[in-house]
Amino acid sequence: MTYCLGMKLDAGMVFMSDSRTHAGVDNVGKFEKMRVFSKPGDRMLVTLSAGNLSVTQSVLSLIDQRARAGGADSVLLAKTMYEVACQIGEAMREVQQRDGEHMRRNHIDCSASFVLGGQIFGEPARLFLVYAEGNFIESSQDTPFFQIGETKYGKPILDRVLTPSTDLEDAVKCAMVSFDSTMRSNISVGPPLDVLVFSSEREEITLRKRVEANDPYLMHIHEQWGEGLKRLFTELPDPEWG
Amino acid sequence: MTYCLGMKLDAGMVFMSDSRTHAGVDNVGKFEKMRVFSKPGDRMLVTLSAGNLSVTQSVLSLIDQRARAGGADSVLLAKTMYEVACQIGEAMREVQQRDGEHMRRNHIDCSASFVLGGQIFGEPARLFLVYAEGNFIESSQDTPFFQIGETKYGKPILDRVLTPSTDLEDAVKCAMVSFDSTMRSNISVGPPLDVLVFSSEREEITLRKRVEANDPYLMHIHEQWGEGLKRLFTELPDPEWG
Repeated sequence: MTYCLGMKLDAGMVFMSDSRTHAGVDNVGKFEKMRVFSKPGDRMLVTLSAGNLSVTQSVLSLIDQRARAGGADSVLLAKTMYEVACQIGEAMREVQQRDGEHMRRNHIDCSASFVLGGQIFGEPARLFLVYAEGNFIESSQDTPFFQIGETKYGKPILDRVLTPSTDLEDAVKCAMVSFDSTMRSNISVGPPLDVLVFSSEREEITLRKRVEANDPYLMHIHEQWGEGLKRLFTELPDPEWG
Repeated sequence: MTYCLGMKLDAGMVFMSDSRTHAGVDNVGKFEKMRVFSKPGDRMLVTLSAGNLSVTQSVLSLIDQRARAGGADSVLLAKTMYEVACQIGEAMREVQQRDGEHMRRNHIDCSASFVLGGQIFGEPARLFLVYAEGNFIESSQDTPFFQIGETKYGKPILDRVLTPSTDLEDAVKCAMVSFDSTMRSNISVGPPLDVLVFSSEREEITLRKRVEANDPYLMHIHEQWGEGLKRLFTELPDPEWG
């Protein structure tokens, strides 16, 4: 499976993705699910992808190809983030139309989705979730994050901790806990993790890192969180129903 | 949706179920999902049910009807828990065969599942999970619990805390945290909760309780766990990647 997370906060944006893919448990691979399309001083775009790998790769190839060609459908020339979301939705529809029926005929799941975030300077940073059907939604003050793939195990900590005013360090910490919980409960989500932090104030990427399984910070979070939960549990009172 | 949980421990069994059902968000109802079939001194059987309510109710009506009729297919006369699991699977197949095709024709999900636990005295206590297709699996020392319905939000605490040697009080506490996490993240799971504890040593039900939304213990767990998680989060170190 996959787990990807994008956050849009007052202080900037945080993106995190795992890198495990599989076609059945006997065919597990490693693919980066984070892509950056940027033009320094003009725009910074990030995509995270989940779902059928052939679909998401095809969509990204089309996006990439069009960005290089420099035509009106280039994400590097789009005037707004909304327009970029439309372009990704359009590419998704093309791929689904070309491949979808053939896959469905063999009962292959062709669903796919993208988190799209970034900033075209002049416009505020924006965060979108693009569905397999090519339609999309945008994040808001009430919901400052989007998840795709295996979303459930890592959602409680986001619901409890994350607000638009969360600072970028806490947001990265929160994302790490969210990924740690997910990786613990679903072995089809796994490291290395790709992390990207974009600062609104500085209008630039302030961290881009590949976090390996043996990363000391990841291991520290894993251990301290796990032990803390057990301690917290033992501190809870026993049932009072007699 | 639904969330039901059955545990088989060295000290006995714990069952917990929510009571929210819905046919779309504009039709939310309340139905107990826990049923007890017992013959004092002879056997104690508990079922928990998830999935399409018409299917699970029909299966339980058949089980009930046959128990009253006292024929060879009565769960009150079955010689082993394995036989009881077969009887429930058989009833499931009958209902699926009668109603399934009609429902699927209108794109109605007819999936359903049961947790079956209990003891026929002379045999040890056993715990089963019966699928919509009527086949079933049994719990083991490695996996001393089964969940049905909305299983993901409440699973991490079980994975971290529950082992066969967990005592019954801790098991109930663990189940409460598991339900609290689930109810927080999925509004289609809701109180009242039904709780049943069966002691292996005493060979009897030692607790059967309906826990309402305003139950002081539930509220206490909810608050203390939520605050504890936030405190735990703030105690985690910030990212060390510079």
